Amino acid sequence: MNQTLPPSSVIEALLAELGPLAVLAGDDVPVRNHNDYSGLQASPPLAVVRPANTAGVAAAMRICHEHGVAVVPQGGLTGLCGGARAPAGQVALSLERMVGIEEIDSAAATMTVLAGTPLETIQLAATAAGFFCPLDLGARGSCAIGGNLSTNAGGNRVIRYGMAREMVLGIEVVLPNGIVVTSLNKMIKNNAGFDLKHLFIGSEGTLGIITRVVLRMFPKPASAMVAICAAKDYGNVLTLLNSARQNLGPLLSAFEVMWPDYWQFATTQAPGVSNPLKGDNTAYGAYVLVEALGTDPVHDAQRFESWLGGLLESGVVPNAALAQSLADGRAFWSIRDASGELHPLWPSHLAFDIGLPVACMDDYARRCREVLQARIPSVQALFYGHIGDGNLHIIVYQPGAAEQPKALVDGIVYGLVREYGGTVSAEHGIGTLKRQWLGHARSPEEIELMRVIKKALDPQALLNPGKVI
Amino acid sequence: MNQTLPPSSVIEALLAELGPLAVLAGDDVPVRNHNDYSGLQASPPLAVVRPANTAGVAAAMRICHEHGVAVVPQGGLTGLCGGARAPAGQVALSLERMVGIEEIDSAAATMTVLAGTPLETIQLAATAAGFFCPLDLGARGSCAIGGNLSTNAGGNRVIRYGMAREMVLGIEVVLPNGIVVTSLNKMIKNNAGFDLKHLFIGSEGTLGIITRVVLRMFPKPASAMVAICAAKDYGNVLTLLNSARQNLGPLLSAFEVMWPDYWQFATTQAPGVSNPLKGDNTAYGAYVLVEALGTDPVHDAQRFESWLGGLLESGVVPNAALAQSLADGRAFWSIRDASGELHPLWPSHLAFDIGLPVACMDDYARRCREVLQARIPSVQALFYGHIGDGNLHIIVYQPGAAEQPKALVDGIVYGLVREYGGTVSAEHGIGTLKRQWLGHARSPEEIELMRVIKKALDPQALLNPGKVI
Repeated sequence: MNQTLPPSSVIEALLAELGPLAVLAGDDVPVRNHNDYSGLQASPPLAVVRPANTAGVAAAMRICHEHGVAVVPQGGLTGLCGGARAPAGQVALSLERMVGIEEIDSAAATMTVLAGTPLETIQLAATAAGFFCPLDLGARGSCAIGGNLSTNAGGNRVIRYGMAREMVLGIEVVLPNGIVVTSLNKMIKNNAGFDLKHLFIGSEGTLGIITRVVLRMFPKPASAMVAICAAKDYGNVLTLLNSARQNLGPLLSAFEVMWPDYWQFATTQAPGVSNPLKGDNTAYGAYVLVEALGTDPVHDAQRFESWLGGLLESGVVPNAALAQSLADGRAFWSIRDASGELHPLWPSHLAFDIGLPVACMDDYARRCREVLQARIPSVQALFYGHIGDGNLHIIVYQPGAAEQPKALVDGIVYGLVREYGGTVSAEHGIGTLKRQWLGHARSPEEIELMRVIKKALDPQALLNPGKVI
Repeated sequence: MNQTLPPSSVIEALLAELGPLAVLAGDDVPVRNHNDYSGLQASPPLAVVRPANTAGVAAAMRICHEHGVAVVPQGGLTGLCGGARAPAGQVALSLERMVGIEEIDSAAATMTVLAGTPLETIQLAATAAGFFCPLDLGARGSCAIGGNLSTNAGGNRVIRYGMAREMVLGIEVVLPNGIVVTSLNKMIKNNAGFDLKHLFIGSEGTLGIITRVVLRMFPKPASAMVAICAAKDYGNVLTLLNSARQNLGPLLSAFEVMWPDYWQFATTQAPGVSNPLKGDNTAYGAYVLVEALGTDPVHDAQRFESWLGGLLESGVVPNAALAQSLADGRAFWSIRDASGELHPLWPSHLAFDIGLPVACMDDYARRCREVLQARIPSVQALFYGHIGDGNLHIIVYQPGAAEQPKALVDGIVYGLVREYGGTVSAEHGIGTLKRQWLGHARSPEEIELMRVIKKALDPQALLNPGKVI
């Protein structure tokens, strides 16, 4: 490390090693590499390096390491917490040229891909091979699989298929010092020493740069059943959840709860969304989208319908709508996805991605709403989320405010998270935006252990410094 | 650390802190604490410490750390690779008094247990609460959950539920320096910083001692279908596997392949095992036990039968037997479990637990058998395993040999593992027995990274030294 070298020195070394196509500096850095989706202020990096292969990533890391220059890995730049934003003076290392499916192994049901490959490309390749890639999120067209793993992405089907972490069998990673660790395991069972991949998955590019991935593929579902169920109160939501677990078993693929505030917003204000429930349905305590994916179109649908009929008869579900077509199913999902339509209506609204033990979610929502209303005049707050996974989303907006009261709302939302033993990030990660709140979800001993690991792998703090911890 | 203190000094300090019930030294160390199930020579530890709670584990670790005395964690002592065996001069730290279910959370579908709790106690508690604990292995009555996690136990239902790792949401762990890291997360989604639990799961007690665990519980299956299918060759086994994945989907819970050598042994020599296949069935290339677990006894059985009927009709499966009762199902499983009956027939036989990419398993088995037969006169070799998970078990025996040719067979089996990109341990772990073969399954860079992590967490190498790496 030589801190006294001028910035031009590292750029020259990178150019000499990787060539002009791979190294853009100064005004040549594309605007897209100035930021991610976090809403933080844009920040042009010293340079952006775009290696064509793992050897190029390793060379770039080695050079930056030798020059004492910090590196920020970049994928599809769709992260929401600032993890891929490079502060001034740091080098952005983009995986955008490392795109492609390297191998599909039908017997092992695995796919080996380069880390810059967009998620949607992977989904389509799995489908073309007769399999299914269950990882799915709104940014599928632009997010890269390396970033999905770095943030351990979640999405709508975690209740059935798990987080991104659960879909990975092997990775290749470049360490801060430029060493390449190739661990492209294709076996579900491999207990030969520590399982290194989990160290890099979910650590937001602070311990190494993921360059290749072995993903599991799953059987393609042949049937999809979707229903919207109303419930009197949260107690009945939990009864419904247990019934769904027990009766739909491993077919249960989504259990999305919407509190009345969210339901009213989505069905009356969101463009293109209609209310599928008949009769007056403004008085329920919660609304649930239940989805099951099966392998037998005829029998699965019959069973789903008869299960739902039983719940209507017993009163656990006083009102429900069952999708009769793919179009119905899409329409039901559009209610749940209406949160994406909020930007024009509520510009700069605050959005949260917290986790809570399932049993106390409604209690949390009630108290959070009360405190927000007591402290912020005319505040709007919407609650919804993947309840079966312990994940609650919250949207907060103060109409007419010159600036949204972010610090105040952060304090209220994350203060209560600590009280209920929840987490400040269920799926989006920590990045820089939530770093000050990490102590609300993790103990001092947990954070100290993260620091010990960070220091062991990156003693000079040159890989994505200032992120997570 | 004070290496010059006599051994009595650490024992006195442990006694003073933990009391005589928790510390047994010298001849008072029970014989059971001298060894695990690895078959290595018994070795009495300096002392065995049996704390009653996490604080006691932390105190014991702190004292041993201060005295520079190495500690070996012990659970149910059913491990097969020597990971829980304490060499002379080391202290065994047994979790045997830390037994019990602390909490069952039905809404979250989780259970919090002490690490010394036997697996079977956990299975029964899950069942009593209306849930299912899918982790299962032969040693269920005596193995402890802490040991199951330390070795990332597998078992028969990994194809559906994953390894032990996948069933864990949170852990509490005591670090080598006595610091307690409590991370008893109950949420499926929690992306607040590095996921620390995966560092300790599967690292065989070399990085920390697991003291408490939050386990996921699953819906109780309401139907079980079991069949034995013959296949002409391994190509047809792969066709059957893909058909099972596609048609049974997430209900598929076991796919156990037995090569003809194993099948002949089990159905003709193992006591109490009968052959359920009609007609001459000695000429097939493989035999498969397929199991599915569902939620609807009537429809699931019909579907399973009709799926199997289609395979018989198409010729993929030329011969099959479908269990008509629970007793039938148990009888079919007894063929697969007959390997446990080998000890009286083939004393001191050699047993292997390797992993291979699914596509090349038959090729591996054929070549391994050829080399064994060429180099070891009258050798017997049986091949069987959890093929859907990439896990192959091998049993090797030379009748009449004064001592089984372990070094020679190890070299043949693990040499071919390296060639095929497999692993030397699919589920049993490395311990001391397979340490010399770790380099056949992991690259120098992977092993070096393991060392970096070990050194960061245990710089004095006082926790389970000499195990894994």
